[in-house]
Amino acid sequence: MNRMRLFTPGPTSVPEEVLLEMAKPIFHHRTAEYRALFANCQKLLQQVMQTTHPVVTIAGSGTAGYEAAMINVIPQGGRVLALSNGKFAERWVSIAERNKCQVTILKADYGQAVDPPTVAETLRRGRYDAVTLCHSETSTCTVQDLAAIAAHVRQTEAILIVDGITSVGAIPVKPDEWGVDMLVTGSQKALMLPPGLAFISISEKARQRMSAIQQPNLYLSLPHYLKSLADNDVPWTPAVTLVRGLQASLSMLAREGMEQVWKRTSTLARATRAAATALGLKVFSSAPVDSVTGICYPPGFDDKAFRGALREQFNVHIAAGQGTMQGKIFRISHMGYVDGFDTLGVISALEAVLRRQGHQFAFGAGVAAAHRELNAG
Amino acid sequence: MNRMRLFTPGPTSVPEEVLLEMAKPIFHHRTAEYRALFANCQKLLQQVMQTTHPVVTIAGSGTAGYEAAMINVIPQGGRVLALSNGKFAERWVSIAERNKCQVTILKADYGQAVDPPTVAETLRRGRYDAVTLCHSETSTCTVQDLAAIAAHVRQTEAILIVDGITSVGAIPVKPDEWGVDMLVTGSQKALMLPPGLAFISISEKARQRMSAIQQPNLYLSLPHYLKSLADNDVPWTPAVTLVRGLQASLSMLAREGMEQVWKRTSTLARATRAAATALGLKVFSSAPVDSVTGICYPPGFDDKAFRGALREQFNVHIAAGQGTMQGKIFRISHMGYVDGFDTLGVISALEAVLRRQGHQFAFGAGVAAAHRELNAG
Repeated sequence: MNRMRLFTPGPTSVPEEVLLEMAKPIFHHRTAEYRALFANCQKLLQQVMQTTHPVVTIAGSGTAGYEAAMINVIPQGGRVLALSNGKFAERWVSIAERNKCQVTILKADYGQAVDPPTVAETLRRGRYDAVTLCHSETSTCTVQDLAAIAAHVRQTEAILIVDGITSVGAIPVKPDEWGVDMLVTGSQKALMLPPGLAFISISEKARQRMSAIQQPNLYLSLPHYLKSLADNDVPWTPAVTLVRGLQASLSMLAREGMEQVWKRTSTLARATRAAATALGLKVFSSAPVDSVTGICYPPGFDDKAFRGALREQFNVHIAAGQGTMQGKIFRISHMGYVDGFDTLGVISALEAVLRRQGHQFAFGAGVAAAHRELNAG
Repeated sequence: MNRMRLFTPGPTSVPEEVLLEMAKPIFHHRTAEYRALFANCQKLLQQVMQTTHPVVTIAGSGTAGYEAAMINVIPQGGRVLALSNGKFAERWVSIAERNKCQVTILKADYGQAVDPPTVAETLRRGRYDAVTLCHSETSTCTVQDLAAIAAHVRQTEAILIVDGITSVGAIPVKPDEWGVDMLVTGSQKALMLPPGLAFISISEKARQRMSAIQQPNLYLSLPHYLKSLADNDVPWTPAVTLVRGLQASLSMLAREGMEQVWKRTSTLARATRAAATALGLKVFSSAPVDSVTGICYPPGFDDKAFRGALREQFNVHIAAGQGTMQGKIFRISHMGYVDGFDTLGVISALEAVLRRQGHQFAFGAGVAAAHRELNAG
């Protein structure tokens, strides 16, 4: 009878009022009704993404969105500076490689951020068409210092393409203020929607660059989206129900206010990190992001048995590590439609399973530490 | 208080039980639960699409699906024979052109089908990597003789890529029996779902061709989808709610049986064509498809005023013509979740608005003709 608690870093819980909005009878998209809906979503997206740039909406996953950003501004065989410290950053490198780009990789170990002065130094030594990076690297639960990196990139001709898939709506991201040219995000994270939509904010610098690029893909051709957007329209059939849900979920975020949304997310993250420490567990990242926390397993713990027990005994759903991180860490999301009491519940469930599976700690220490953090300040 | 009647050729009405299925709390996709759901959808898709070939599911519109089919089997600069008789076929030509293909276009006037012997003759004179065509050209409401065309293409090395976006689930399509290598369809037509998913069935011949192709796009890379599919998995985050709805809607089609689904659609189309004739209106196409009927406006009629009155007075939603056809025809869908009584209601509304806006006819003749067709046989 435990209520399902979905703490995976995407999909995240979808609010009931958003689910119900999407369950209403569908309507056609070549109508004044759809254009009004889409225009309102555009305004709300700009508010949530903290930008005055146009924001393009694509029916597809975050990968579709990031690939669209890259291929529309990087010429075939162009020069890319790729910051890489996890699975998602590596995916953006592989897109550059498929497009025969000359890729310079600035690597940090999993769980580490790339040092902004190193970025500055590399930019001084070479010319790049684009810089790619993952603001919040979901696979390692690590944040990059985007403001500092952007300050260097904006002084060059490179287009800064940021994967904000688990940062937008969770932690402060200020593309206009910082100088992010293309900020990509997805529906199924802090925006509290099901997966199926990707969003890209596009600066004037990026739009100008685009006009000189000829790339073969039609579906992901951003000039097509931008041209339609001027009439609050879409080039291809949009995912109508998801866009309808988008209006509902973005309205919730706008009502709460972005400063408050960021503060709430940060509080949940601090509470979870405090609990981990109190339970004698190590937070994996040395630059932990507030949208999702990665915690190292105690020695001898089995990932499948641990997460399986949480799921089967408590209906609590958390995520495994990805790729080489599988079995080493587990991940708990703080994005979107989660509050302090649910987070406390997840920590209570963690304690119960940790004890049953043999980890030694003061039972209740995690819940107490989290409770204190939730009520601090 | 009139119930909304959505008769646009996509999106089409979504059954209430599908809407409610999609409104259930969301879950994570890297789970046994999702793999079981996806495996079942795969089985149902094969049944509805009448194929034993693997069927790939992409989060995106029909355009994403058709583009994925093309770019994964046609080499850069390859030779394409494109049958073209409407807006959608033209879109597939533009994808070939963006990819610097050598495109031979077999054109038919809007509302006409391409003659199969002409296709055979063209195939004898040249070598092609692929043949592209729109089975049911939604913009002109016209059907191509796919079985006859496929019989010619299958004797060549060309990959036959068929846009079945408004034919699958509406009219007979038999890819394995006829020799269609890649059959593309979308969620928001006869499959009775919201837009946001595209599907491609892929023959052995197409899979072999793919292995020799290096194309830059990652999101639409079909080998990635096929590799994951072997484990009932997905390469990128899937549109979980839509896949959940897919299981519900395909189950409805499977329960009805495809022969019966095709018969129902065909009956609604015949009833609508009979009504048009009885009202003194011309069916636009000389090879009308059963999934959507295009009807020519009487002289002097204004498209916006006509469809606006239907919408505002009767909550009946039909589609305009596209591109150069705008103002010349209106279109009524017969796909998916529509029955004879709703179709009769739409014809009743058509009669009322036609009379008010000055068309001369025997009031009631359309409804009577449709009623007779619905009850024939």
